[in-house]
Amino acid sequence: MKRILIIGIGAGDPDHLTLQGVKAIAAAQVFFVLDKGAAKHDLVDLRQRMIEEHGRQPYRIVEAEDPERDRTTPAYTGAVEDWRSRRAAVYERLIAEELPDGQTGAFLVWGDPGLYDSTLAIVEEILAAGRVAFEYAVVPGITSVSALTATHRASLTRVGRPVQITTGRRLAAEGPPADDVLVMLDAHCSFGELGADWHIYWGAYLGTPDEIRVEGPVPEVADEIRRLRAEARERKGWIMDTYLLRRS
Amino acid sequence: MKRILIIGIGAGDPDHLTLQGVKAIAAAQVFFVLDKGAAKHDLVDLRQRMIEEHGRQPYRIVEAEDPERDRTTPAYTGAVEDWRSRRAAVYERLIAEELPDGQTGAFLVWGDPGLYDSTLAIVEEILAAGRVAFEYAVVPGITSVSALTATHRASLTRVGRPVQITTGRRLAAEGPPADDVLVMLDAHCSFGELGADWHIYWGAYLGTPDEIRVEGPVPEVADEIRRLRAEARERKGWIMDTYLLRRS
Ligand SMILES: C[S@@+](CC[C@H](N)C(=O)[O-])C[C@H]1O[C@@H](n2cnc3c(N)ncnc32)[C@H](O)[C@@H]1O
Ligand SMILES: C[S@@+](CC[C@H](N)C(=O)[O-])C[C@H]1O[C@@H](n2cnc3c(N)ncnc32)[C@H](O)[C@@H]1O
Repeated sequence: MKRILIIGIGAGDPDHLTLQGVKAIAAAQVFFVLDKGAAKHDLVDLRQRMIEEHGRQPYRIVEAEDPERDRTTPAYTGAVEDWRSRRAAVYERLIAEELPDGQTGAFLVWGDPGLYDSTLAIVEEILAAGRVAFEYAVVPGITSVSALTATHRASLTRVGRPVQITTGRRLAAEGPPADDVLVMLDAHCSFGELGADWHIYWGAYLGTPDEIRVEGPVPEVADEIRRLRAEARERKGWIMDTYLLRRS
Repeated sequence: MKRILIIGIGAGDPDHLTLQGVKAIAAAQVFFVLDKGAAKHDLVDLRQRMIEEHGRQPYRIVEAEDPERDRTTPAYTGAVEDWRSRRAAVYERLIAEELPDGQTGAFLVWGDPGLYDSTLAIVEEILAAGRVAFEYAVVPGITSVSALTATHRASLTRVGRPVQITTGRRLAAEGPPADDVLVMLDAHCSFGELGADWHIYWGAYLGTPDEIRVEGPVPEVADEIRRLRAEARERKGWIMDTYLLRRS
């Protein structure tokens, strides 16, 4: 039997890795590293460093080209699902051809594998197709949500109250769905129009040496966030940011 | 200056601890361990073992009695806030009397300190009172949410869709607020009345040797969960469980 580990590696800090993650990396003989083009170079770098530090020789790193998502279509869910199927084809080939029976292969997943990540769905899609058989397990990771709230020393939740985790796209389309909202995957600073009763805790490149954070009432800090975000994105070629919105 | 570290230790598995958590434990000279009575003995135990394994000698463990929450009043938020203030008084005394200037004290917090935990609010309350001064930092931890989804190999989120994190109390009062709901702090299996279009991923004692998990359409598995939950609670004297509800 082949075995796959889907390992959450945390949101940017090499020390976000858990002891369980360290052991999982040490248990793998094959690492699948998918490159998403130059912009994501830093993200691949962190994975390589973790494998070098915690991998147990002999292991192999198998690199492959991650298919590009169609960013021109407005049909977000459809585009993501199509992209996922193309990725499933790549992952299936890797597992079939590059992972010998009896060995353990690993995917190192950014943050936690359960939060806006498609690796689990891809693996299920491959198993459902039935052309290659394997066991798999998931190792939880530090989310960018926890990285954000930790650096701001803020709580995600207030006593007895709910919090909604949502996307920038949804926030832009529907406005805040609750008094406490955690926004991910926002390419457009969709918090822009909120009033002074909304406090924002914003962070980019969390856990990395480039980490930036800004906090304050939305109308007071929105311009600063937009400026910092545009500058950083220009300088580094990519950005990942997330924020908590809280109505007072 | 005194320094405090609020360290997320994960949701039950000693290997949930991150490398950052390991380093933070090694950096502390004083550990504050608050006992919540016999029922929570296992939870204190995990902390003690982490300190023994990762603490750097010489360190001191300072134990104190954590005040009891008033569970008789129906005013949940008020009771929690009153409880928090009484805890703040205990914590303030510990920091003032047991932590020498120039030393680092640590609180080991279950899961992630940003998720339904009062330590951050307590620390802010002490600082606001102004009678004792210190710096503090937060180390993120693996949440019970990530522990739940990892063991079920399920994703917390679906593509482009939001998820609400809420309490059992809210779910019982208001019903599911979204198609994907993560429920914590539920003493009463408040999922009980949901129909067959709702799938539940339930887990108790996640990450520990006692871990139990059940998954399925709510009407099919609700009785089994209630039975397992009651038996386990009876046997161990306490229970912590959480679940994801997903409408198809
Ligand atoms: C595809 S999702 C993956 C989330 C990841 N699985 C997690 O647990 O954080 C990518 C989004 O996560 C957020 N994100 C991930 N890492 C981040 C970081 N280091 N700093 C800020 N935001 C981050 C951003 O909102 C980004 O658009
Ligand atoms: C006061 S909250 C603390 C949550 C914690 N800070 C975290 O990040 O998971 C306690 C609730 O968390 C959930 N929980 C914590 N640890 C758990 C575990 N090991 N298994 C199941 N549920 C857990 C339960 O819903 C419990 O009622």
